[in-house]
Amino acid sequence: MKKNLNVTIIGLGHIGGSLASSLKQIYGSKILLNGIDKSNSTIKKAKKSNLFSEVSTLKLNTKIQKSDIVFLASSIQSMPQLFSELAKINFEKKVVISDVGSVKHEVFKAAKRLLPKQFDFVGGHPIAGTEKIGFANLVEGLFDGKPVFVSGTRADRTSIAMIVKIWESLGSSVYFVSPEKHDKIFGYLSHLPHILAFGLKNMVNKSLSKAELVKYGGTSYRDYSRISQSSEDLWSEIFLSNRKNLLKTIKDFKKYLDKLEGLLNHNSKEKVKKHLKS
Amino acid sequence: MKKNLNVTIIGLGHIGGSLASSLKQIYGSKILLNGIDKSNSTIKKAKKSNLFSEVSTLKLNTKIQKSDIVFLASSIQSMPQLFSELAKINFEKKVVISDVGSVKHEVFKAAKRLLPKQFDFVGGHPIAGTEKIGFANLVEGLFDGKPVFVSGTRADRTSIAMIVKIWESLGSSVYFVSPEKHDKIFGYLSHLPHILAFGLKNMVNKSLSKAELVKYGGTSYRDYSRISQSSEDLWSEIFLSNRKNLLKTIKDFKKYLDKLEGLLNHNSKEKVKKHLKS
Repeated sequence: MKKNLNVTIIGLGHIGGSLASSLKQIYGSKILLNGIDKSNSTIKKAKKSNLFSEVSTLKLNTKIQKSDIVFLASSIQSMPQLFSELAKINFEKKVVISDVGSVKHEVFKAAKRLLPKQFDFVGGHPIAGTEKIGFANLVEGLFDGKPVFVSGTRADRTSIAMIVKIWESLGSSVYFVSPEKHDKIFGYLSHLPHILAFGLKNMVNKSLSKAELVKYGGTSYRDYSRISQSSEDLWSEIFLSNRKNLLKTIKDFKKYLDKLEGLLNHNSKEKVKKHLKS
Repeated sequence: MKKNLNVTIIGLGHIGGSLASSLKQIYGSKILLNGIDKSNSTIKKAKKSNLFSEVSTLKLNTKIQKSDIVFLASSIQSMPQLFSELAKINFEKKVVISDVGSVKHEVFKAAKRLLPKQFDFVGGHPIAGTEKIGFANLVEGLFDGKPVFVSGTRADRTSIAMIVKIWESLGSSVYFVSPEKHDKIFGYLSHLPHILAFGLKNMVNKSLSKAELVKYGGTSYRDYSRISQSSEDLWSEIFLSNRKNLLKTIKDFKKYLDKLEGLLNHNSKEKVKKHLKS
């Protein structure tokens, strides 16, 4: 890269912060990072990190016009509003808007509807989230070795290539998938597991004391409870944004439980075994 | 210990094999291990390991009469039958029957019903199982640092102390819990998680190809799929043996899913969030 790359990151949580830190690690002085968040305490932390040339709220930000790329790393729910606000900004050159949201179909629909035609949009989803949240928990190199799904693009080849190149430079493997397929697949592999983990946690918290949990918690519960330590705020948004797929998976899951109930009542080992394997 | 300890292990799978290997590691020549299994191929593998002074089926075994302790590490379903067969054996001294089953109430009931009064029974459950099965996958030191629940005893103090001492010598921490409480707690912390994991695996296998799984499998699915690699044979027995508790938890879990369905349909983020937290 000959000239400096101007990158704005909106939403400086665990993912946005890790993205900033990882980009700085790789690009060094060849990148100028501009940070935006709505929370003053996050802005304060981000300023202290010295990763950014400016950190502020979107309203007060003076550098966003210079962006080559704007990454939205904020909540799914906030994205339509942010697209509308970005639409009003007079960018100095062609800008690429991208995101890191866990749900792609709704985000892409909103992007197409709300962003002006001259803005390029390249949706993305790095599979790198953990149960951690917040700028203070950022992980430099978080995306190294992780897959990133580019999903939902209204952009020319150069813009798409630019986003792909950035993720690859952070060590990610980039795959392309349609937003519909993305949401169906992650409904099964990520969202449903979280629905189950939250349910299990609720039942356990209702039925057992903390002391019992510490004493009796074996490995299988530990795996689940890691997942269910995730933010209910984030996940309620993800579930709602992908609710069409999730309503189907919940319905199917209840059928599985119904059938298991019946087989347990009939006390048939072979049938239970077959049902577990089916 | 002055004299040799004679220990028979019935069921030389992952747990039984690991128990044999761990006991030999700690007690060396001070222990004589007698191995029993119903499978000829397991018997062959166990013989090759040189851990045992004899390995055979129960019927052909010549050393069981000398046992101080008989550990049942076989399937839960097999235990009543084994208790009946042990009842016929003319042990040379007072014998302690113990087990390592994941469900305790049914095992204890069967033990009390089927074992002669002069046999001591000390039920046990080491929290050390993994998704692995079979003698070939035994792990020396598997119980080191793991909790062991002693649950359901019809025995004198010396017998109970002997079982406790053995587990502690393997590095385990021993706790006492009633069979009823044990099964209720593990219904929530181990059995229900496995029910959910098997259900998720089934749905994923029906809906996604193997190639998609490899490409898209993030961390949350990986945690679940580790659990659901467990043996359907073993778990169908566990579910049936603890079905009274599990039918209640399944019912409660379906209520959680029902409510979530309704809230997703009503598109209320605050209510979904509250439900996930409740």
